[in-house]
Amino acid sequence: MSGAPWYLDCDTGVDDALTLGLLVAQGADLRGVGTVSGNLAAAGGARNTLDLLALMGRPDIPVAVGEHDPIGGVFDPTEGAKVHGVNGVGEIVLPRAGEPVDESAADMLIRLAHEHPGSLRVLAIGPLTNLALALERDPALPSLVAQVVIMGGAASAPGNVSAVAEANIWNDAVAANRVFSASWPITMVGLDVTMHARFEESHRVALAAGGASPQALAAMLGVYFQFYTPILGRPSCALHDPLAGAIALGLVVPTLAPVVPVEIDDTAGPGRGQTLVDLRGRFVGYPLQAGARHTVVLEVPEGFGDALLEVLLRLP
Amino acid sequence: MSGAPWYLDCDTGVDDALTLGLLVAQGADLRGVGTVSGNLAAAGGARNTLDLLALMGRPDIPVAVGEHDPIGGVFDPTEGAKVHGVNGVGEIVLPRAGEPVDESAADMLIRLAHEHPGSLRVLAIGPLTNLALALERDPALPSLVAQVVIMGGAASAPGNVSAVAEANIWNDAVAANRVFSASWPITMVGLDVTMHARFEESHRVALAAGGASPQALAAMLGVYFQFYTPILGRPSCALHDPLAGAIALGLVVPTLAPVVPVEIDDTAGPGRGQTLVDLRGRFVGYPLQAGARHTVVLEVPEGFGDALLEVLLRLP
Repeated sequence: MSGAPWYLDCDTGVDDALTLGLLVAQGADLRGVGTVSGNLAAAGGARNTLDLLALMGRPDIPVAVGEHDPIGGVFDPTEGAKVHGVNGVGEIVLPRAGEPVDESAADMLIRLAHEHPGSLRVLAIGPLTNLALALERDPALPSLVAQVVIMGGAASAPGNVSAVAEANIWNDAVAANRVFSASWPITMVGLDVTMHARFEESHRVALAAGGASPQALAAMLGVYFQFYTPILGRPSCALHDPLAGAIALGLVVPTLAPVVPVEIDDTAGPGRGQTLVDLRGRFVGYPLQAGARHTVVLEVPEGFGDALLEVLLRLP
Repeated sequence: MSGAPWYLDCDTGVDDALTLGLLVAQGADLRGVGTVSGNLAAAGGARNTLDLLALMGRPDIPVAVGEHDPIGGVFDPTEGAKVHGVNGVGEIVLPRAGEPVDESAADMLIRLAHEHPGSLRVLAIGPLTNLALALERDPALPSLVAQVVIMGGAASAPGNVSAVAEANIWNDAVAANRVFSASWPITMVGLDVTMHARFEESHRVALAAGGASPQALAAMLGVYFQFYTPILGRPSCALHDPLAGAIALGLVVPTLAPVVPVEIDDTAGPGRGQTLVDLRGRFVGYPLQAGARHTVVLEVPEGFGDALLEVLLRLP
């Protein structure tokens, strides 16, 4: 639990929905949410975010629509729809509530950073387009933001879009390169740990026995489980975004997270969208290398599914 | 032990020298050795190979000098010299013996493949320049060669030249791309396993108590140990090439080696020289994917250092 003010950047998304639930249930001081195209279009992600926040009893949290297209590209909803359903929340229908604010996500991030200089924390669990745009509009941003935690990338684990690329980085590799090159320190929560953080069928069933928002979350997990079952070999799913949220709030404390150099492949080659994390120091405890600034989470304690379930069942 | 005829492509090099010792001690039917620039220049590698084969009692094995420069590039001896010494064999002086044959390495490979159609096996433990050139000169080569085993690449382990690139692939990424794209099946023995196959100081001391060739191998390990000590955290070294040789001969049988798609990054981007191995099927036993042809060794039994020592002590 952190008393710090937070800006959340997301593409809601089934696992983004779980993360909203985690943040709300933990009482995170969420000052604003911006959306970006990823799991679905930014506008649809804002719709889902507003509806979920209202259902969870926090219709007061402002939601800003962010960038529709990646930098220099065009958003394609095809792959996201296979994982999260066309509407992003597993085709369930949420009660419609509220409207986005009249501010872009990038401008919201810049405003909040200036309102909370040195204390604003950023949790980014979608493609990094809004963050890259905010950096371009206000180069002072890295000096104002206390911490950036992202769900994205893969250090030594395989990718999920290609052999080496994770979806959030792949979806806007140019933005990711700019965000990782900026002078703020990033905590990268990637597939190395998120593919091992799981909800099993038992978690889904327990969630479905909770209040209205746990029930909605359990319902949308149906499509998400369908996607993951052939990948994981049994009905279950990976808890990508919630694990990043839990690490951001200090609910999960990584057991191995070295500060190491990270480069982003934004070429048109076969490695496009890869986070190239330099782990060559692994036999000698990852001594600090010149140019190393980002913390890459490589190991977390077991049992995150149980902990997340317990937190989400506190929601109305 | 394999009765099949072998062609060895190497860049002798300290761990290449150990591999020559392994092949000779195991009585491999070595029909020819070609050299390539990598650990040192191709001509120097041929000199070392001739001298070592004579010392090991096999001056009859023909050695051909191969390509000096990588495809489309210029050979740079700087990095190799740091690992293997300027002369490639840890600055020790070997008794000079024999001369290379009047045939290029690529032509030797092509000739041997036609002399042993369907049965010739290729062990390549340096950059893949000669193999790529042979493929260009004789497109029928893949249909003639029974098996290609290479030391090179990294699937989920870090690289050793960059965060993701292993030296043999990095040194001629264009050649590697051509060799992996050809229709022969490759067994890739990369840093995933070779960084865990080690000679410790005790192995080196035991080797130094052997005959003339074990003594020479122990002496050249001095420089190699110096390079690896800060990487591994104690006086020791990785047994890259010998492990590939042992797997080629069946002396070591991998415990995990899925057939999976492999792409080579030959762009000028940060991923240059990476072997992109698709391990996304890891939670469900690596089901065979379309386009998968190469076997990637991911796990081998422990204790290779002991086994190699025992074999090398049989040398004169």
